[in-house]
This record gives sequence, structure tokens and C-alpha cells, in this order.
Amino acid sequence: MKEIGYVENDTQHAPAGPEVRRRIQESFDRQGLMAHLGARITHIGPGRVHIVLPSRPEVTQQHGFIHAGATSAIADTAGGYAALTVFPEDCDVLTVEYKINLLAPAIGDRIEAVGTVLKSGRTLTVCRLEVHGVRGDGERKLVANGQQTLIRVDKPAAE
Amino acid sequence: MKEIGYVENDTQHAPAGPEVRRRIQESFDRQGLMAHLGARITHIGPGRVHIVLPSRPEVTQQHGFIHAGATSAIADTAGGYAALTVFPEDCDVLTVEYKINLLAPAIGDRIEAVGTVLKSGRTLTVCRLEVHGVRGDGERKLVANGQQTLIRVDKPAAE
Amino acid sequence: MKEIGYVENDTQHAPAGPEVRRRIQESFDRQGLMAHLGARITHIGPGRVHIVLPSRPEVTQQHGFIHAGATSAIADTAGGYAALTVFPEDCDVLTVEYKINLLAPAIGDRIEAVGTVLKSGRTLTVCRLEVHGVRGDGERKLVANGQQTLIRVDKPAAE
Amino acid sequence: MKEIGYVENDTQHAPAGPEVRRRIQESFDRQGLMAHLGARITHIGPGRVHIVLPSRPEVTQQHGFIHAGATSAIADTAGGYAALTVFPEDCDVLTVEYKINLLAPAIGDRIEAVGTVLKSGRTLTVCRLEVHGVRGDGERKLVANGQQTLIRVDKPAAE
Repeated sequence: MKEIGYVENDTQHAPAGPEVRRRIQESFDRQGLMAHLGARITHIGPGRVHIVLPSRPEVTQQHGFIHAGATSAIADTAGGYAALTVFPEDCDVLTVEYKINLLAPAIGDRIEAVGTVLKSGRTLTVCRLEVHGVRGDGERKLVANGQQTLIRVDKPAAE
Repeated sequence: MKEIGYVENDTQHAPAGPEVRRRIQESFDRQGLMAHLGARITHIGPGRVHIVLPSRPEVTQQHGFIHAGATSAIADTAGGYAALTVFPEDCDVLTVEYKINLLAPAIGDRIEAVGTVLKSGRTLTVCRLEVHGVRGDGERKLVANGQQTLIRVDKPAAE
Repeated sequence: MKEIGYVENDTQHAPAGPEVRRRIQESFDRQGLMAHLGARITHIGPGRVHIVLPSRPEVTQQHGFIHAGATSAIADTAGGYAALTVFPEDCDVLTVEYKINLLAPAIGDRIEAVGTVLKSGRTLTVCRLEVHGVRGDGERKLVANGQQTLIRVDKPAAE
Repeated sequence: MKEIGYVENDTQHAPAGPEVRRRIQESFDRQGLMAHLGARITHIGPGRVHIVLPSRPEVTQQHGFIHAGATSAIADTAGGYAALTVFPEDCDVLTVEYKINLLAPAIGDRIEAVGTVLKSGRTLTVCRLEVHGVRGDGERKLVANGQQTLIRVDKPAAE
């Protein structure tokens, strides 16, 4: 097992190579849910992916805040693609499980999920999930924090 | 602390009283995300709530299965409302955290989330979350299983 | 993937075959921690293992209740061996991760952990973990509830 | 809610005040399990506590590595005391739940658990848990990573 990105490193903040970015963007674009929620990828680095979700009525819970389910959906997706950045090209990724704490109401113009690879092994990868609320003036607040386990699988031959 | 519903009991399969059902349905109807996903409540029992989500392109991941984020969103919501069924009327509920294992691809016509109260205390409540894939012929398969912690809060006076 | 024991079945309450029981007892007996804590296996069924830990000062936290760490240790071990009961003989098991809620102080003469296989696949297995406080008069109370992911590994050749 | 220590800060690496350290050391010393395992506190900073456990046969699993239960026990305890450092003196702390990934076998002379407060509110506190294997030559390796929810409670009057 090699350890990737455990202590946050500068590499993660740089963009990944064009081939990796293309592969992940294409996969993301096939996710009906992400388009339906209005989410988009804003950063693809080695072992680190950011996804932004603007606040609008379609993603809220009963008090008008962003729904924990929407928060989790982009967190889970950011972690999955963060794992995919460190896999060989012919592999795909499935979420085994994740745990997330909702720390504060997701107030603001948008939320941003950050998935970061903590450890990547031959079979399993573990990611850290963080979601920040972001206001128009750029002020950020941590609204959710989690941890995710993923499994590497062979890509179906037909795809 | 009273223990509610730890061993599944017959009461949970009966509907809750009309006042509880009205209160929960109204809250659910204010959730923009649930309407946007196409989810609906199909059962409100004491300590137990079911939510169904039909499969359609708007809720899928990159391989056409229902997205783990959609699965989690209805599981989290089912658990939250299961907790709310056992709270006094002037209380509301917030998810503290949850953990969910994705056990199998969510294949089928729809998925059904079942939230069941395991333990309800003065401040915290713990629920079990289960999501089943359901085919048109009624065959069911467990696709996700989780555990959730919720906190009881006073309902804002303005509502 | 075959689903094992999702709905609790009678088989789990019957003992496993003698070969499985011998293999698991021998592995358990090599665990220095379990002996040091004073834990013992009390049931080995197909997909289900029970471990009992008597209360004594060596396993307490600062208020004299059984320490969450001791509760978790026997829960994790019960789940691991529950998984092992459904594996081929030449396989071993490692805990990938688990999540546990501590529901109530572990009061009583002893605690009993019950690990139950929810789903067992070729690579990963998911177990439910339950820990009950048991008084001398036999009264039981659920004190912890969790969920665990395990991975099947080849047994080292040397053993 | 005030956010404490989310981005690791220098303060956490400095020792806490003498009163806080005395209070936590006294509580730790009353934990029968920690003494029985051979664990000791090695750092008490504001929002951050370290606990070391030397490797010896009494804390192992069946292959001679440190048992996940022992790893979890010191991780849970480190997180609990990290939370306690930021509480008023008349409060105590209980673990609500935690989730931990076992990333690598705990090889080495000892393991060191680091509990760090991510967020501390009036009722609930969330901590990050990390456990490192440490060899005699000082080389460190992350062996477990987790996340924990704690609740603040009034200290019993009698104590």
C-alpha cells in the first residue's frame, strides 16, 4: 500500500493531468443526479476533487437549508472521483460506505465538497470528505465532515 | 431513556395517528429536494417511516444505477421522520450524522428506504436505515444499510 | 453476492459445524487482548458469533462503567468471527472499518456482543454489531449498536 | 457554535493550562481499562490529546499485531479527552458514536492515538481520530483514521 495525500500536499492543489481530468469529467457528465441537482466539478487534482452545488429551492430541506442528502451526494461523489484520479485508466470505483457528520446548517450561496484521498491500496481506498458553505463574499464555513471507503473495480468491457 | 422499537414490533407496521401523519407529511412536502428527486412517503408508523424513489435518469450515477447520493438522501430522510414520529409536537429533528454501506447496485423500478427508531432519548435518537431495491414483480433486495444519530431541537417559534 | 442472514434466521441460533467452531475458537485463543480483557466466546453459529465480557475494574472508564473501548473491542471481534464462519477454511478476515453508537452506560454483571452477517460477498462482508448489558437476573438492555465492513484475505501460508 | 481547531493550529501543539491537564490526567487515571492495557497520556493541548500504547502480547489479535479493539480504545479515549479540554470545568463528556477505518496493520513498538476537536458546540462535539504506528527509530505510519461524536454532560454532583 502506498500512502497518498495523507498530509495535504501542494500537489493536490495543482490540477491533474489532462487525460485524468477528461476521464473524470466525462464520467461526471454521465451522472444524471449531478446534473439534476445542478452540481459541477470545480477542481480535479491528484487525489483531490472539488464539487460545487449552488443553493436553490430544488435542493432544500423543510427549513430552506440545503438538504443533508444533497450535501452527502456531492461529498460522496467528490470522494469517489478523488479516488479515481489515483487509479489506472482501466479501473472504476464504487463507494463501499461512508459516514458523515452534519456540523452546521448549509447557509450561503453554494456549498463546496472536497474529497481527499487519505490512503489508497490495491483494493480499497479511504477518503476524507469535507463540505463548506460559501457565501457570496467568499466567507467559508465547514458544514459537514466525513470519511469514506471505496473499492476499485475493473471497468466493464463494454464501456 | 425509553427504548422504542428496538426489536421490530407490530405497532411500527400500523400507521401512526392522523395528527402525526399530517405533521410529517406537511414537513416532507416542504422539502424541495424530495419533490425534485421524485420521492414520496409511503408509510408513517410509530417509529418507522418508508420513502419510495422511482428510478429515472435524473437520479442515476455514471452507469445508470440509482446514485448512492439519492439512496442516502431518502434513507436519511426516512430516519429523520421516523424519529419525528416519537417526538412531542413542538419539536423538530436534525441529523447529527449517519453511516451507510452500499451493499449492491440499486437495480429495479424503484428503491424504498425504511427508517426505524432503535433508541430514542431526551436529546439523541438512533435510527436504523435500510434501502431495498424493488422490481416491478415485487422482488426486493437490500441495497444499502446504515445507522443514523439525530438530535431533537425546539421548533422555531415563527413556524 | 449471496445474502446471508439478512433477516435473522433460525440457522444462526443453531451452532455451526464442529470444524468451523474449532477453527474460530483456536483463532480467538490466539488473541492476547481477548484473554487480557477476560472475554470469551459463548456462541458460534453460521453468520453469528456471541462474545461475553464480565464487568470488573480492569475494563472500566472513569465512572466505573465498562469502557466504550472494551465494548467496541468485543463487538468488533464478534463481527469478525461471524464473517469468518461463512468463509472458506483457507481464508482469514480483517476489519476494514466499523461505526458504533454507545446507547446507554454498560451497567450489569457482564456485556454480550452479538455479531451478525448482513451481507457476504466475494471480497467484502458487512456485519451488524449489537452489545447488550446483562444483569445477574438475566435482564438485558441494548448498550451499543454498530455496523462493520470486513475484507476476506488469503490465510498466510506459514500458519 | 464556535469552531475550534478545524484547521490544525499551533495552539493545539502547545500544552494546555495546568488546571486542564490535572483534571484530564486525574480522569484518565481512574480508567481501569487504560491502565490494564498499559496506555498513557503523552500530550494534553487545547483541543488535542495524544495517548500512547506500547505493543505487547496482552494487546494483540490472532496474528500478533495490535488488536483493532485496542487501537480503537485509545483513539476513542484521546478524542474524548480532546473534547474535555475545551469544556467548562463542571462538565463531563460521553462518546455518542465513532467510526474508524483500520488502514494498515499496527506494526511497531507502540501506537499513538491523536484526538483533535474539529467542531465544538454547546451540546455536541466532533473529533478527528488518528492512530499512528511508531517504530523504535521514530518512523511513523498512519494505521487508523476515524471520526467521533461526543456529548457534553453535567458532572455528577457527588464527584
